[in-house]
Amino acid sequence: MTEEATQRFVEDLVDKSEDFSTWYVQVILKAQLADYAPVRGCMVIRPYGFAMWENMQRCLDARIKATGHVNAYFPLLIPESLLAAEAEHVEGFAPEVAWVTHGGKEKLEERLAIRPTSEAIIGRMYSKWIDSHRDLPILINQWANVVRWEKVTRLFLRTTEFLWQEGHTAHRTREEAEEETLKMLGVYQSFLEEDLAVPVLAGMKTESEKFAGAERTYCIEALMGDGKALQAGTSHHLGQNFAKAFNITFQDEDRQRKHVWQTSWGVSTRLVGAVIMTHGDDSGLMLPPRIAPYQVVAIPIWKKGEERARVVEALAGLKPMLEGVCRLHVDDRDEHTPGWKFNEWELRGAPLRLEIGPRDVAQSQVVLVRRDNRKKEFVPFAALPERVPALLDELQRAFFERALAFRQANTREVTTYEEFQRVLESERGFVVAGWDGEAETEARIKEETKASIRLIPLVGGEAAPGLRCVCSGRPARYRAVFAKAY
Amino acid sequence: MTEEATQRFVEDLVDKSEDFSTWYVQVILKAQLADYAPVRGCMVIRPYGFAMWENMQRCLDARIKATGHVNAYFPLLIPESLLAAEAEHVEGFAPEVAWVTHGGKEKLEERLAIRPTSEAIIGRMYSKWIDSHRDLPILINQWANVVRWEKVTRLFLRTTEFLWQEGHTAHRTREEAEEETLKMLGVYQSFLEEDLAVPVLAGMKTESEKFAGAERTYCIEALMGDGKALQAGTSHHLGQNFAKAFNITFQDEDRQRKHVWQTSWGVSTRLVGAVIMTHGDDSGLMLPPRIAPYQVVAIPIWKKGEERARVVEALAGLKPMLEGVCRLHVDDRDEHTPGWKFNEWELRGAPLRLEIGPRDVAQSQVVLVRRDNRKKEFVPFAALPERVPALLDELQRAFFERALAFRQANTREVTTYEEFQRVLESERGFVVAGWDGEAETEARIKEETKASIRLIPLVGGEAAPGLRCVCSGRPARYRAVFAKAY
Repeated sequence: MTEEATQRFVEDLVDKSEDFSTWYVQVILKAQLADYAPVRGCMVIRPYGFAMWENMQRCLDARIKATGHVNAYFPLLIPESLLAAEAEHVEGFAPEVAWVTHGGKEKLEERLAIRPTSEAIIGRMYSKWIDSHRDLPILINQWANVVRWEKVTRLFLRTTEFLWQEGHTAHRTREEAEEETLKMLGVYQSFLEEDLAVPVLAGMKTESEKFAGAERTYCIEALMGDGKALQAGTSHHLGQNFAKAFNITFQDEDRQRKHVWQTSWGVSTRLVGAVIMTHGDDSGLMLPPRIAPYQVVAIPIWKKGEERARVVEALAGLKPMLEGVCRLHVDDRDEHTPGWKFNEWELRGAPLRLEIGPRDVAQSQVVLVRRDNRKKEFVPFAALPERVPALLDELQRAFFERALAFRQANTREVTTYEEFQRVLESERGFVVAGWDGEAETEARIKEETKASIRLIPLVGGEAAPGLRCVCSGRPARYRAVFAKAY
Repeated sequence: MTEEATQRFVEDLVDKSEDFSTWYVQVILKAQLADYAPVRGCMVIRPYGFAMWENMQRCLDARIKATGHVNAYFPLLIPESLLAAEAEHVEGFAPEVAWVTHGGKEKLEERLAIRPTSEAIIGRMYSKWIDSHRDLPILINQWANVVRWEKVTRLFLRTTEFLWQEGHTAHRTREEAEEETLKMLGVYQSFLEEDLAVPVLAGMKTESEKFAGAERTYCIEALMGDGKALQAGTSHHLGQNFAKAFNITFQDEDRQRKHVWQTSWGVSTRLVGAVIMTHGDDSGLMLPPRIAPYQVVAIPIWKKGEERARVVEALAGLKPMLEGVCRLHVDDRDEHTPGWKFNEWELRGAPLRLEIGPRDVAQSQVVLVRRDNRKKEFVPFAALPERVPALLDELQRAFFERALAFRQANTREVTTYEEFQRVLESERGFVVAGWDGEAETEARIKEETKASIRLIPLVGGEAAPGLRCVCSGRPARYRAVFAKAY
């Protein structure tokens, strides 16, 4: 690119507040997180975006394993008859399935679904593996790609193919399964809040929003920068639905043959979208340190040729020290000015910028600049191994606090339908209100306001006596959280 | 299982020397590495087998990144027209492709291939991303699943779907691409020999065995316990074939527009099979410490109830100390005897067994037993943090030495076709011999002996003056390595 073109590259980014959805797509393409693929609704996750996903995987995988789960891998292809075994499940997923009908030149006797989710194929294997109460619980997780034939797609948030993890567990009792379902919801909440710095609400989905085949679906919901909600993860109590469909039984201690109780839970590459839409600003991405591909980007600054050698040499000396305490990238490209690099790495969301020029070298110091508030501080070389991790921790916390403050400012409890409609129309955000528990009311609200019930909060979701449904005026059964959503 | 059934579980394993291929399948199923899936030619990788794969991924991913590569993710589905753009490529892969023809209820206008490999879709993206010499080299790797509609399948070695990594790089010059192709071959060789303890030969494939669309294919070949060869990894110099098919060009320093030079390289879950068939013995698996899910399996031993508490408590005290230096599993199941556990963990290939009984506790020591030669040694508690890693290193080396000795004993250089045929008939192994370089001779040898040319060695592959082709008797062009192969 010419210098003029590169200048445009950063300047062309539309303001986030002005046109959020254009900003979202631009920042993804310009930061090279992802690109459109030559297949309908599919995307390519480019190295910078994939490094975010790898960091997210590493954080979450450790949490999943720390709670006693192990990873495994089940086939991509599911025979149609197997997918059809659980009635609600097939009804929910069949419209979204990509079907394989030919292998090489041969037409298949039975169509194969590319997994939209793996309950069916895993259920079939569990019926083979589980025989005694000693085989329980089974606590398996899978990292995999899935395909759902979506009508409307959007980078990271809803793509025909996406990457995810799906946990599938089997238990002796309903209580154990319920405990597992909630435990994993908690794992997701900690992962989002601590690693992604994305605050979430945790609660239960309504009947109309639950997973096809589940007895109960729990979820976490986050609030994006434009005031729309994003379902960030789900955890399903499957009851014995799949156990009955796939005949998954065990001999209990009392020698009775019983069906197992199951759960499943998942989060996906959609979370990359959640991070972008939670933390970004008009200058581009802001990546939480724990998952940023590069936590510190070092930019050498010089004017004259003889300065270059001194700066580069000093930086090379600092490198081993810094690499031990952070993920470092040194941007030593000659074809761009420092100013241009500042802009680019702000756009790409690097949490900390390290500047070093000839005067800094003379004083054995560098300048550290925070991405969030652009505050600068001079740090002596010797203090870097301590100061950098401390600053990254501060940033991680600051990102979360900032997002939490935004959510709190955009969560409003209302009692009248007029106010309900007005808030959703003009300010969006989460709206907390009484709901009579009727699917009909839920549908009417969605029809009239485009807002859905995101969840019944785990804490505070029961209606206090006297609370009325914001729409029907009847006594409320729940205190629900509504929002327009992705 | 009853004690009788569990006894059979281990005893039923056939001798490796007696019936290698039954042994192979039995040991996979009994050790719970994998299971057959209800889809033709597909398998489920169970947690114990998947943990091996995860360890292998971690080791290889670090090597791939250390050589400057980054990971990314490209779509599973490839439009038929895109796959067809490179003529040799589509001809080679079309017969093995699983085709998606429907999305939900809608019939697709163009069929989509489930990727059998990703040159086509990646080539298309590279043509979009590469513009200047400054964009080169591109050094991208992908961990993914692929599907090839195979006629005959075998657990891990050849399955309809398998997991692998595929590197795809683009370079300015032929020389750089050739250097990359050989560099990655070297990375694979180090990975197999150092991490998997599997010795390999490195060399070039013949024209008839090279990758569809490549200019040249290099490979590494390992010798399995039954004397058959296994292709363990390939690295292709793609020349400008895909660059021309997908119009991948760049403006060079001289301002000329040129096609890039490309490489691709991959290894797959087939390597789990290689580890099993290289190191196993009549008692089951032998897993190299670097990739064993559990490097040390601790088995508490007691007879009377009061002994149990003492042993379990001592083991609990050792746990933190051991977990810092190895992957530890404590097998404290009450339903099995220690003897049964010994057998099971030998079958499952744990490199080191740690036994601890009441007398050991009294003497503050444990017994460590090596999987390979069953040598026992008494180790004081305090010495464990040093002794365990040292022993694991010894085991890792011993596994490699043992496999190397086996390969050396089963590599024979011959000069007459009679001897060539006799060796391949009665002893198998690698057979080194002169080859005239003619495809016709190669085909005739394969027809008559079922042996193929595994590779032309990188070192020593040129025919010395006077060497004659073992089959045609004409002057040899190469000194080739032949074997029957998986």
